[in-house]
Amino acid sequence: MKRLQETWKAGDGAVNAWLSTPNAIVAEITGEYAFDSITIDLQHGLIDYQAALSMLQALRGSTCTPLVRVPWLEPGIIMKCLDAGAMGIICPMINSQEDAAALVRYTQYAPIGARSFGPTRVGMVYGPDYASQANKSITVLAMIETAEAYKNVLPIVGTPGLSGVYIGPSDLGLSLGYEPKLDQDDPNVMKVIKTILSAAHQGGVKAGIHCQSPVYAKRMLSEKFDLVTVGSDIRLYRSAVSNALELLNR
Amino acid sequence: MKRLQETWKAGDGAVNAWLSTPNAIVAEITGEYAFDSITIDLQHGLIDYQAALSMLQALRGSTCTPLVRVPWLEPGIIMKCLDAGAMGIICPMINSQEDAAALVRYTQYAPIGARSFGPTRVGMVYGPDYASQANKSITVLAMIETAEAYKNVLPIVGTPGLSGVYIGPSDLGLSLGYEPKLDQDDPNVMKVIKTILSAAHQGGVKAGIHCQSPVYAKRMLSEKFDLVTVGSDIRLYRSAVSNALELLNR
Amino acid sequence: MKRLQETWKAGDGAVNAWLSTPNAIVAEITGEYAFDSITIDLQHGLIDYQAALSMLQALRGSTCTPLVRVPWLEPGIIMKCLDAGAMGIICPMINSQEDAAALVRYTQYAPIGARSFGPTRVGMVYGPDYASQANKSITVLAMIETAEAYKNVLPIVGTPGLSGVYIGPSDLGLSLGYEPKLDQDDPNVMKVIKTILSAAHQGGVKAGIHCQSPVYAKRMLSEKFDLVTVGSDIRLYRSAVSNALELLNR
Amino acid sequence: MKRLQETWKAGDGAVNAWLSTPNAIVAEITGEYAFDSITIDLQHGLIDYQAALSMLQALRGSTCTPLVRVPWLEPGIIMKCLDAGAMGIICPMINSQEDAAALVRYTQYAPIGARSFGPTRVGMVYGPDYASQANKSITVLAMIETAEAYKNVLPIVGTPGLSGVYIGPSDLGLSLGYEPKLDQDDPNVMKVIKTILSAAHQGGVKAGIHCQSPVYAKRMLSEKFDLVTVGSDIRLYRSAVSNALELLNR
Amino acid sequence: MKRLQETWKAGDGAVNAWLSTPNAIVAEITGEYAFDSITIDLQHGLIDYQAALSMLQALRGSTCTPLVRVPWLEPGIIMKCLDAGAMGIICPMINSQEDAAALVRYTQYAPIGARSFGPTRVGMVYGPDYASQANKSITVLAMIETAEAYKNVLPIVGTPGLSGVYIGPSDLGLSLGYEPKLDQDDPNVMKVIKTILSAAHQGGVKAGIHCQSPVYAKRMLSEKFDLVTVGSDIRLYRSAVSNALELLNR
Amino acid sequence: MKRLQETWKAGDGAVNAWLSTPNAIVAEITGEYAFDSITIDLQHGLIDYQAALSMLQALRGSTCTPLVRVPWLEPGIIMKCLDAGAMGIICPMINSQEDAAALVRYTQYAPIGARSFGPTRVGMVYGPDYASQANKSITVLAMIETAEAYKNVLPIVGTPGLSGVYIGPSDLGLSLGYEPKLDQDDPNVMKVIKTILSAAHQGGVKAGIHCQSPVYAKRMLSEKFDLVTVGSDIRLYRSAVSNALELLNR
Repeated sequence: MKRLQETWKAGDGAVNAWLSTPNAIVAEITGEYAFDSITIDLQHGLIDYQAALSMLQALRGSTCTPLVRVPWLEPGIIMKCLDAGAMGIICPMINSQEDAAALVRYTQYAPIGARSFGPTRVGMVYGPDYASQANKSITVLAMIETAEAYKNVLPIVGTPGLSGVYIGPSDLGLSLGYEPKLDQDDPNVMKVIKTILSAAHQGGVKAGIHCQSPVYAKRMLSEKFDLVTVGSDIRLYRSAVSNALELLNR
Repeated sequence: MKRLQETWKAGDGAVNAWLSTPNAIVAEITGEYAFDSITIDLQHGLIDYQAALSMLQALRGSTCTPLVRVPWLEPGIIMKCLDAGAMGIICPMINSQEDAAALVRYTQYAPIGARSFGPTRVGMVYGPDYASQANKSITVLAMIETAEAYKNVLPIVGTPGLSGVYIGPSDLGLSLGYEPKLDQDDPNVMKVIKTILSAAHQGGVKAGIHCQSPVYAKRMLSEKFDLVTVGSDIRLYRSAVSNALELLNR
Repeated sequence: MKRLQETWKAGDGAVNAWLSTPNAIVAEITGEYAFDSITIDLQHGLIDYQAALSMLQALRGSTCTPLVRVPWLEPGIIMKCLDAGAMGIICPMINSQEDAAALVRYTQYAPIGARSFGPTRVGMVYGPDYASQANKSITVLAMIETAEAYKNVLPIVGTPGLSGVYIGPSDLGLSLGYEPKLDQDDPNVMKVIKTILSAAHQGGVKAGIHCQSPVYAKRMLSEKFDLVTVGSDIRLYRSAVSNALELLNR
Repeated sequence: MKRLQETWKAGDGAVNAWLSTPNAIVAEITGEYAFDSITIDLQHGLIDYQAALSMLQALRGSTCTPLVRVPWLEPGIIMKCLDAGAMGIICPMINSQEDAAALVRYTQYAPIGARSFGPTRVGMVYGPDYASQANKSITVLAMIETAEAYKNVLPIVGTPGLSGVYIGPSDLGLSLGYEPKLDQDDPNVMKVIKTILSAAHQGGVKAGIHCQSPVYAKRMLSEKFDLVTVGSDIRLYRSAVSNALELLNR
Repeated sequence: MKRLQETWKAGDGAVNAWLSTPNAIVAEITGEYAFDSITIDLQHGLIDYQAALSMLQALRGSTCTPLVRVPWLEPGIIMKCLDAGAMGIICPMINSQEDAAALVRYTQYAPIGARSFGPTRVGMVYGPDYASQANKSITVLAMIETAEAYKNVLPIVGTPGLSGVYIGPSDLGLSLGYEPKLDQDDPNVMKVIKTILSAAHQGGVKAGIHCQSPVYAKRMLSEKFDLVTVGSDIRLYRSAVSNALELLNR
Repeated sequence: MKRLQETWKAGDGAVNAWLSTPNAIVAEITGEYAFDSITIDLQHGLIDYQAALSMLQALRGSTCTPLVRVPWLEPGIIMKCLDAGAMGIICPMINSQEDAAALVRYTQYAPIGARSFGPTRVGMVYGPDYASQANKSITVLAMIETAEAYKNVLPIVGTPGLSGVYIGPSDLGLSLGYEPKLDQDDPNVMKVIKTILSAAHQGGVKAGIHCQSPVYAKRMLSEKFDLVTVGSDIRLYRSAVSNALELLNR
């Protein structure tokens, strides 16, 4: 469960898988591969808590660090996902330092935060020192995906307890008046993305980015992003089906 | 998926089915019938997101427009339901223009609103122009069901981006000091209901009402309501069982 | 759980509900009504074991006797349903005394039969004397629904341990060269049905019949059938939806 | 469903079971025992709404009063759990009278509160007078589990409509700078616990406490707590497995 | 639902998708593509009846013909899958004409076979003439996958009512003393495969083959197989993940 | 996954857990403990295939060998459970060498048996040499639990490919005319049990026995049984609840 942090300790960029399908078999298969982390997406993925729990269980034998993207900055679901076994939270639509501070508060135990104590499953999975290690073991990533968040990126990255930021290029593009798509290449959008990356590194925190094609993800790693997502499971499956049918002239 | 809007374009009143049972078979059967829309009730219905997803899938072959009533004015679940395939949202307890504006913000993409982009299933079902069409294709109905909402009905119906209002007679009755029941007939309650209907039409938006008996629903159509609900699935099933047992002298 | 047997002890005909929907809410609602028994259909119903278990749990507070129609004369599923809480088994396609004897063997403990011991849930629900009472408490009905079964009806009803027969009019009609439908009225089919009824009563066992309309079910009760099914849940729901839409001119 | 209130009417302390496993069989088994109430934990338990619904159904035949601990002070899930059959709500992290008043508002119908009307399942289970009885039949417990809540305990217990408080010793300990554990025995923590107990009784409301060992729970009953929890299901199962393996020298 | 038969009527070879994941989202996505048929695998796939039902529902809007591979030649599950919406059955381990005749009997209504009547879902999906069309609309494929079946291939393909054979290369290879793998190329195995293909065509029935790579599937189409499977879903997803990680040097 | 075989190689008696609850959390918790094997009971347990699959996934991180008790000697479910990850099968009601030979045939690949090839999940979990190792890695236990099986114990234990026998004391007692209970102590039943044990060891195969109390299980280990079951999960939970309530004078 510590693979993501070990990759970062080694100074490397991490590769993250992305699960949108509410299914524990897809999760278990993904966990066989050399990803540093696997994110179960409860926002745009077709997944809610109970499905996520079974997926976290299916990742029990995996070396990949399990993360969850929550639907919104809401304490109930964030804490439930942590108790269920997520070792990190990606939270959408963090637009201000106030938002970022709330995110930290919901994910950290006192005295740093106000997470309620009861690590029912994660305590079993992580082991007896979970309670004492949780505040430093959990990765907390704030999504920067609006013009407002971009404007506030410096106070956001300066929020004590935040592990880093995660760029959502579709929403960011949309908010800036461009097309809502991944693997952005418009120079104006790219400039914003690179500014966020720099701000994160200047603030001493990590920067991740949601990508679609492996080629683009590789480019982002070379840009020094600390975490790149390839996928999702649905996109990868679709690409494989399309390729197969193309070969068969369908 | 566009049947509801087509019925309205034709100037007709729409008939809406109501699903309270967390079951995809009941949904699929309902989708066989000549309803304009089918609402999956995540508030008082016994349904949460994952069950709703399977129900939306079961309506894939139906011509009825799928709607969801969400449990509360909360962005996480509203956006999840839209991504899962709902072409409209009915939101309970909209008591002010501020509430109504938040509802619009959660259901519309920028620049109108702040819905996060990622139409994982709905984009597949609706087709490639979903992103460009969503803001005008999605029906957003604010429930008017308290004395406070009644007081604020004019600012509510004037909220830009709102498609209409939907009257919840039980809560409205309760809030006004009457019995919490459907198919209201008390003159004082009826006066309130008609005032809301008029306010909606003066504001240029639609008005719907939750009914129980088909006879009452028919009357409400003749009162010029734009959408009447008959049902729910549970009420209809109960009535059929009662009638059968009565015939058998049980 | 003993209501069906009590109705029979009182010399009355029993009314049976029929569940085809894999859903515990539909089951719980049905259990509120004055049925003598409720059959969960694992053959043509859209239900398998795990759904049936949740439905049996939902009938916990009901006074109706829970029955299961199994998919086929197969010991694994028959015994699982009994352990899960079914107080009776309806088995399709019993065409010979050999079949009927196998059915008895699978549903009765030694020394009468060879049912394996382990009443995990039913023992809890029925109480501590389940083991000693099971062989006489469980209702075992063999479906007579082919020309072959009709030919063998006397040896079938004479099978020791069998509680009775249950006529499947659709399959019986089909097998005899008529239309596969419920509520048969063709004189030739009716003659067969009445012959089976007489054979059962002469053999000292019960006779049940699968009906659709309550009116037909009532007629079958007056013909002295010991159990008539009205329904199913799906048929009743469909009739209520159709009636509602008809009233609304849809 | 009224056992908890009857125990209290008789002047006795109540014993509460605690369910963390998302499973209706575990719930049904627990419902066989002489608990006054059974709480389904949607906060730290591994349970969400749809699993809770099936558990509430499995408790249909039980005499124990079903309660739900909700994940957070959020109206959507609180009202859904009440409609599904919970006869009481335990709400975490009530830190002020404002929080407590919101909790009352979400759990009571007008004119006391603003709970939306639609008791889909609970109305069926409780019976036809549910609507008129709900406000006095539902037990509403505010969790006191932070230093801030401790500071505000008097205004909290004075909130009209609140049934009582429920102490979460792990979070309370953590918040006060002690170890996050159950069955606290540190004199400083115990002093806080007893102060809360006294405050509740002075305010005329009930006081409950989350315990682990039955021995500690018994002690708390003798301290005049009105409700003690033993468990959870997971803790009890773990203790039985440990004991068995110890006997087998594993 | 008739696409497979239409492709065959047009004299073309059909492309079949293969689902091993118990998930309705994967099924719905697959149904978007230009497959002639989609097989839900209840034998080696991780799928049982209830999951298959939800997958068949998710294919409601698809033009692909839904097939099911059943776990074994057992009437209960075969008939349940047909009632649930399968328009064809692939049955493993058909080793003799007796086996093949039983398969036909279980899949066809009287007078050809002995399938029990009750097309609960498929009757709704296919339409009112299902009962009269079923015997000719349903595709029945016998798997030839052992040395014994190979020996009996002529009587098997001569079984009245059988639509065709489907070669399982892994089991066939294993049974003949070769490696259990797909996309066989050993000349001895290939000779057996071509003999089966010829036997099927001489017997006037279809021949299908389970393939892994699209390239091999294309080759089998050029060999005049009437149906080639590409996939499964799991294999395609795995290949896409592997390719992505390879590009990222993982 | 090899722990059971390693314990046996070391000459020790194995301790087996028993799961009757259809729940992956209970399974995962059980997998934390020092059992040699864990059996998921699909016969008298309240579990079918899909629940068993999620439980096998939840045991992914456990060192205990996962076994399944199947509902009956039926090839479909036996092979599905092996493909899903079971490393051993316990089959009820093996009454003759013919039964035992069928069991071996269904669990072993050619040339020993006729298990169909397609280890979809187990191949992933066990690793790439599963196909070549499966026939010797899988533990196959025939239940001896009737008077007839007792009579045929020598030919049964002599069946090539069988790993051993497993005594079901309840059914065995019932079949012999005694009470159907675990932890038998009647001298006549004990004599039969010891005869079976001796027969197994003389035949060179393992002998296991289903126990309830840990004390009795320990005694059976000292009698040289190779595998003793303690439990089940339900019995252990019940005992813990009873003890807790007794302490609280309930």
